[in-house]
Amino acid sequence: MSGEMAGKIIKCKAAVAREAGKPLVIEEVEVAPPQKMEVRLKIMFTSLCHTDVYFWEAKGQNLLFPRILGHEAGGIVESVGEGVTELKPGDKVLPIFTGECGDCRHCKSEESNMCDLLRINTDRGVMINDGKTRFSKDGEPIYHFLGTSTFSEYTVVHAGCVAKINPDAPLDKVCVLSCGISTGMGATLNVAKPKKGMSVAIFGLGAVGLAAAEGARIAGASRIIGVDLNANRANEAKKFGVTEFVNPKDHDKPIQEVIVEMTDGGVDRSVECTGNVKAMMSAFECVHDGWGVAVLVGVPSKDDEFKTLPINLLNERTLKGTFFGNYKPRTDIPGVVEKYMNKELEVEKFITHEVGFSEINKAFDLMLKGESLRCIIRMDA
Amino acid sequence: MSGEMAGKIIKCKAAVAREAGKPLVIEEVEVAPPQKMEVRLKIMFTSLCHTDVYFWEAKGQNLLFPRILGHEAGGIVESVGEGVTELKPGDKVLPIFTGECGDCRHCKSEESNMCDLLRINTDRGVMINDGKTRFSKDGEPIYHFLGTSTFSEYTVVHAGCVAKINPDAPLDKVCVLSCGISTGMGATLNVAKPKKGMSVAIFGLGAVGLAAAEGARIAGASRIIGVDLNANRANEAKKFGVTEFVNPKDHDKPIQEVIVEMTDGGVDRSVECTGNVKAMMSAFECVHDGWGVAVLVGVPSKDDEFKTLPINLLNERTLKGTFFGNYKPRTDIPGVVEKYMNKELEVEKFITHEVGFSEINKAFDLMLKGESLRCIIRMDA
Repeated sequence: MSGEMAGKIIKCKAAVAREAGKPLVIEEVEVAPPQKMEVRLKIMFTSLCHTDVYFWEAKGQNLLFPRILGHEAGGIVESVGEGVTELKPGDKVLPIFTGECGDCRHCKSEESNMCDLLRINTDRGVMINDGKTRFSKDGEPIYHFLGTSTFSEYTVVHAGCVAKINPDAPLDKVCVLSCGISTGMGATLNVAKPKKGMSVAIFGLGAVGLAAAEGARIAGASRIIGVDLNANRANEAKKFGVTEFVNPKDHDKPIQEVIVEMTDGGVDRSVECTGNVKAMMSAFECVHDGWGVAVLVGVPSKDDEFKTLPINLLNERTLKGTFFGNYKPRTDIPGVVEKYMNKELEVEKFITHEVGFSEINKAFDLMLKGESLRCIIRMDA
Repeated sequence: MSGEMAGKIIKCKAAVAREAGKPLVIEEVEVAPPQKMEVRLKIMFTSLCHTDVYFWEAKGQNLLFPRILGHEAGGIVESVGEGVTELKPGDKVLPIFTGECGDCRHCKSEESNMCDLLRINTDRGVMINDGKTRFSKDGEPIYHFLGTSTFSEYTVVHAGCVAKINPDAPLDKVCVLSCGISTGMGATLNVAKPKKGMSVAIFGLGAVGLAAAEGARIAGASRIIGVDLNANRANEAKKFGVTEFVNPKDHDKPIQEVIVEMTDGGVDRSVECTGNVKAMMSAFECVHDGWGVAVLVGVPSKDDEFKTLPINLLNERTLKGTFFGNYKPRTDIPGVVEKYMNKELEVEKFITHEVGFSEINKAFDLMLKGESLRCIIRMDA
């Protein structure tokens, strides 16, 4: 069962990034049919994540423009390419910026979600089947982003990067589960794994950090210590279960020492969501010896090294990194949506703004000003 | 039921370290009765570990002499002090250099063995009950070492530092399980936890590293890659399950790159037993992304920092340190002895030499020359 446009080019609106840091331009683009193991999606709702902004600003990166950004979204399968058996037109889905081929050592490992074939690739602007784009305008190719390019009414995605979710799930809410919220929550639930009653420190109270706090709340943590340089985060953070707020600017000594004192030796778990290498070291050194686990989520933009004295490790601390909260995109994300459907996970509190697609640049402004956690972009408005 | 000397001073032979780096002197010393929560042990066999040599050389340390070294040993309880209920005269025991009070947060945690009260303290030369020594000669106190001081026919140890073992266990064999062998084996079995069929790299093939290899063999590792700068270790290591030997001196590139190539992306687990900070970094960076776990065992003698790029962590590698193989001394070490009794663990291959107590300085020579793994010192000869 395929839609009427299956196998044909679809003309639709997309927000095209033509130059680094310049407003996106809503244009009519052509979206080619999905090829082998690809699906074409109708995007219903997308949201903006810092990673979009980072690659839009493109500071110190290879320039890859024109490009269609966007990777947090919810949509419906419009048509499927050759070999796609697990998805069909009409399926409600979340496109994911990293994939799960199901066949590689990573996909077969219970511990990894870093698929050899479909692992995130920020430099690739084309589809892997033929090394070309599915987007074009007047014959000019327009590059893809993270294999998702959700700032378009239609997009083409590898089938291994598509999570089929509960058909009853409201896409205007669960679309935010396709990146940041799952990343933060998974870091806590799947990697830090606090036991009920444990203390957890969260470094960085943006959407990912607040999702990590939400994970700690779900796990039954007794104390959730939020750390952020922005004092305005303190109030907001309470909604996400943060019980104490610490601002490194308010202290003369390293923040890890402050936390060690607050907690009689250190927190049981910490989750670092800023990407700042100094915060990573603090997050590691604030966990208790004997059993403390620090989990790194934030991605540094520079080649700064993580440094610590070996004794901090030898005293039985654990340091781990995670990617996408260790969730396997196709296997696990439908279950994250179910957590929302079961009211275990609260998603609404992450959604602070909503704009129509024609106003997508407003979403960028809100994020750059630090005013939004997540801004939903309605594709039909 | 106490021995006839209970409550009295025992005069016996001890090997006293009177000066840093000078041969031990066999002297008659006085050993006071055990005080509250202490036990007096008759040491039957002791062995020499690098840590004894390190504190005997006392380079760059606080000098604490005269001192009775020794901490790997097996013995029999001679008498017990006030409040000791879990040990009685005649019990076969291993004294341990770190303890388990049973009451602190660490002892109550399933994850830690770093007891608040009885954790290793290399600077303390006295008993905690009264801050004094139980050893003396002509009224001159002789300092303790690691709370064990097993280079003496009799010694006094805190009851929380004594593992009661199977009365059938041969002390001339299982005495080596009170430190190095358990440390290495536990690092693999309790912390790295390789699954059957996994690959494991071991850095440093001294007794601790070979015990880590033995742990990997017991766990059913498919490949055990031994790394050592000493080419002579290659043959010896085969007995301990090492399937491949790599000498960093034979390669122009960092050894982690060599191992990553040998293993199509990295080993599943690594265990670092040298204490060299560069080896620690190599051990971390040679594990596979997605699931690799590196465990640090070796203690650095300098304040060198461990450094790595955060991306190595973010790609889902885990870095952990361990102390005494994460074994709780009283709870777990009897079970390690049982592994030997059940023929699961082979101990004999670690024992390369044996000397009488009067020849104890020979054991030091053998270790300094790198000729021995473990040299058993018979107290009755």
